[in-house]
Amino acid sequence: MTVIQKKEYRPLTEATSITYLQKLGYFTNQVCESVEIGDGNLNLVFKVRPVDQEQGLIIKQALPYAKVVGESWPLTLKRATIESNATKIYNELIPNLVPKIFAHDEEQAVTVMEDLSHLQILRKGLIEKKSFPFFAEHIGEFLANSLFFTSDFGTTPAKKKELELTFNNPELCDITEDLVYTDPFFNSETNSFEEELLEDVQALWNDEVLQLEAAKLKLDFLSKKEALLHGDLHTGSIFASATETKVIDPEFAFVGPIGFDLGQIQANLLFQIFSRTDQKEEILDQLVTIEKVFNETFIRLWEEHSVRPFNQVELIKEKLEGYWIDAIGVIGCECIRRSIGLAHVEDIDSLELDRKIAIKKEILAFGANCIKNRFTIGNIKNLISDWSNKS
Amino acid sequence: MTVIQKKEYRPLTEATSITYLQKLGYFTNQVCESVEIGDGNLNLVFKVRPVDQEQGLIIKQALPYAKVVGESWPLTLKRATIESNATKIYNELIPNLVPKIFAHDEEQAVTVMEDLSHLQILRKGLIEKKSFPFFAEHIGEFLANSLFFTSDFGTTPAKKKELELTFNNPELCDITEDLVYTDPFFNSETNSFEEELLEDVQALWNDEVLQLEAAKLKLDFLSKKEALLHGDLHTGSIFASATETKVIDPEFAFVGPIGFDLGQIQANLLFQIFSRTDQKEEILDQLVTIEKVFNETFIRLWEEHSVRPFNQVELIKEKLEGYWIDAIGVIGCECIRRSIGLAHVEDIDSLELDRKIAIKKEILAFGANCIKNRFTIGNIKNLISDWSNKS
Repeated sequence: MTVIQKKEYRPLTEATSITYLQKLGYFTNQVCESVEIGDGNLNLVFKVRPVDQEQGLIIKQALPYAKVVGESWPLTLKRATIESNATKIYNELIPNLVPKIFAHDEEQAVTVMEDLSHLQILRKGLIEKKSFPFFAEHIGEFLANSLFFTSDFGTTPAKKKELELTFNNPELCDITEDLVYTDPFFNSETNSFEEELLEDVQALWNDEVLQLEAAKLKLDFLSKKEALLHGDLHTGSIFASATETKVIDPEFAFVGPIGFDLGQIQANLLFQIFSRTDQKEEILDQLVTIEKVFNETFIRLWEEHSVRPFNQVELIKEKLEGYWIDAIGVIGCECIRRSIGLAHVEDIDSLELDRKIAIKKEILAFGANCIKNRFTIGNIKNLISDWSNKS
Repeated sequence: MTVIQKKEYRPLTEATSITYLQKLGYFTNQVCESVEIGDGNLNLVFKVRPVDQEQGLIIKQALPYAKVVGESWPLTLKRATIESNATKIYNELIPNLVPKIFAHDEEQAVTVMEDLSHLQILRKGLIEKKSFPFFAEHIGEFLANSLFFTSDFGTTPAKKKELELTFNNPELCDITEDLVYTDPFFNSETNSFEEELLEDVQALWNDEVLQLEAAKLKLDFLSKKEALLHGDLHTGSIFASATETKVIDPEFAFVGPIGFDLGQIQANLLFQIFSRTDQKEEILDQLVTIEKVFNETFIRLWEEHSVRPFNQVELIKEKLEGYWIDAIGVIGCECIRRSIGLAHVEDIDSLELDRKIAIKKEILAFGANCIKNRFTIGNIKNLISDWSNKS
């Protein structure tokens, strides 16, 4: 008789992270060092390496709670498996744009993956005004491949329904449903903003058209199951250098509207345009390049892989237009929630108060306009040219 | 040590169906009679009753294959559990409009349910030109309640995601994806139609606008996850009498576009209008009443249960308009597939050849018009008035 003992979840330490790896057969008989390099809010992240080499391995372990702005709430460990599963799919589709996964332990919510510590989190690099000349092309390819091959254009109905099972992700979707699509549009406890913004914020809360259009976008998020999304694709979920781009942290992955991933990454680049006093052109180019590369790659993939009855070019063009209309709406939501909701962005929050207030007012107005006029704006190119004409 | 023995699936017989029920505690120590009353294509259906009473119990057992037009293909037994789970949900929402469920056995794919043999399958009754004066109101209520309370307006995102797990139904959705949305629009092997229709059918296959619009409807079916659908709501899935209505057979249940259930039932009533030479008015009234009762009930439920941010009347009105536009498209698909696809309807197939051909030509043109012009037609009221004006 075999007694299967379920091992209780136990957070790793720097010491146990080394033995954990060695039990898996890595770095055996080598003297190793482990350093916890995570921000400690949601996950433990250890870099473990033999003392005589720079490159090691990353052990990421989900914590059973989240800490945001001092608050702590329970959060499912299942997200580690969601993240690992999504990264595995990305490794099949665009292996050069995501970390390799070496092992995953569902019970301990642990994933062993490629050490990317030679790269920098894109948001930090952008704030330091570094250049990432390949980033826009890379992320356009990432978006087109990951979204096409998990959509009804690139996979079978049965495989898509398997994705819906694997990535049924109620706990993390709930965070987005609340923090992106609901709370910022009402006087909710989770909101957090400077008192100087109160008048602008109240105007948003009293804007009936905005409320209606935001509700429609939330309905889309809840019911438009177009492709497997990363679900949290901001500039903090990307490692980059002058030549490399790696998308990390897809723990929010689920099958949802394609415009969501498109809009989130674009919004987070827009925060750079808002916060910079110079070198805006580079970021504007990236916005346009991402749209262009995504559209061209998506169409190319569809030309190579299209099946009946989805083989009419009018269909794919109409759908692409729809994705970008949705994305403009998502940009609007992201602009508003990152200004007045629970989780802000360093790009804006690190500015001195007066400038921050002025820029946040601008971002709030810009966001409301995106949400209300997304059908007439239509795409990133128009959004930027409208805006360049105004400023 | 307990050895759990998995009982192998075994089809019931009239004799074993009685002992099966008695082991569950029904009709113990009573002399019973069992009669198989199913059509034997997909399921075994036994009516078991004590010999001294009329009313008994129904035992329905899924068969591991489907027989259609002489062909036999394997078909998942899981559909019995899907059907039982959907019927249980309907019992919570609209108990008077579905059979009661007394027991379900997942391994044997068996469900014990209320004996409704005092009622008649609606399709048969309509062909016999019986009147069902409460049917339209009942089915309108069924649709509004079952769809509202499983949509994002009537349930929480977490509960809706649970529905998506429970009713992830790839095998039976695949049948609809092929037989309703794909095969009839191409020269597919599964199609079956009279040679006199060839010219009309080829015109459909060469109609590029129709092809494009049908592809869009298929995409909706694959990606619009609005509510838990019955998934096969034609007049053969309804038991009725002059006073009662009971919806049965939700083995195709899944989370999909609301317009699908709305359109399927309406299309199957339309077949009566096409095939009748008199008493059409009664059916026309039913079509309009279903739309009216559905809309009014859906809005009333939303008024009583609406939550932020979905509490604006413009939102619900716009969504209702969208559901009926989708439904007109579904009517079109159902008209075409029931005329030239694999599975026909008795309403039309029982007519003598010349009339059948003439009517099928009419139905094909009507269906293509519904698909192509669903946005301008908009709803059932317009559809009928357009059509009455022409004829």
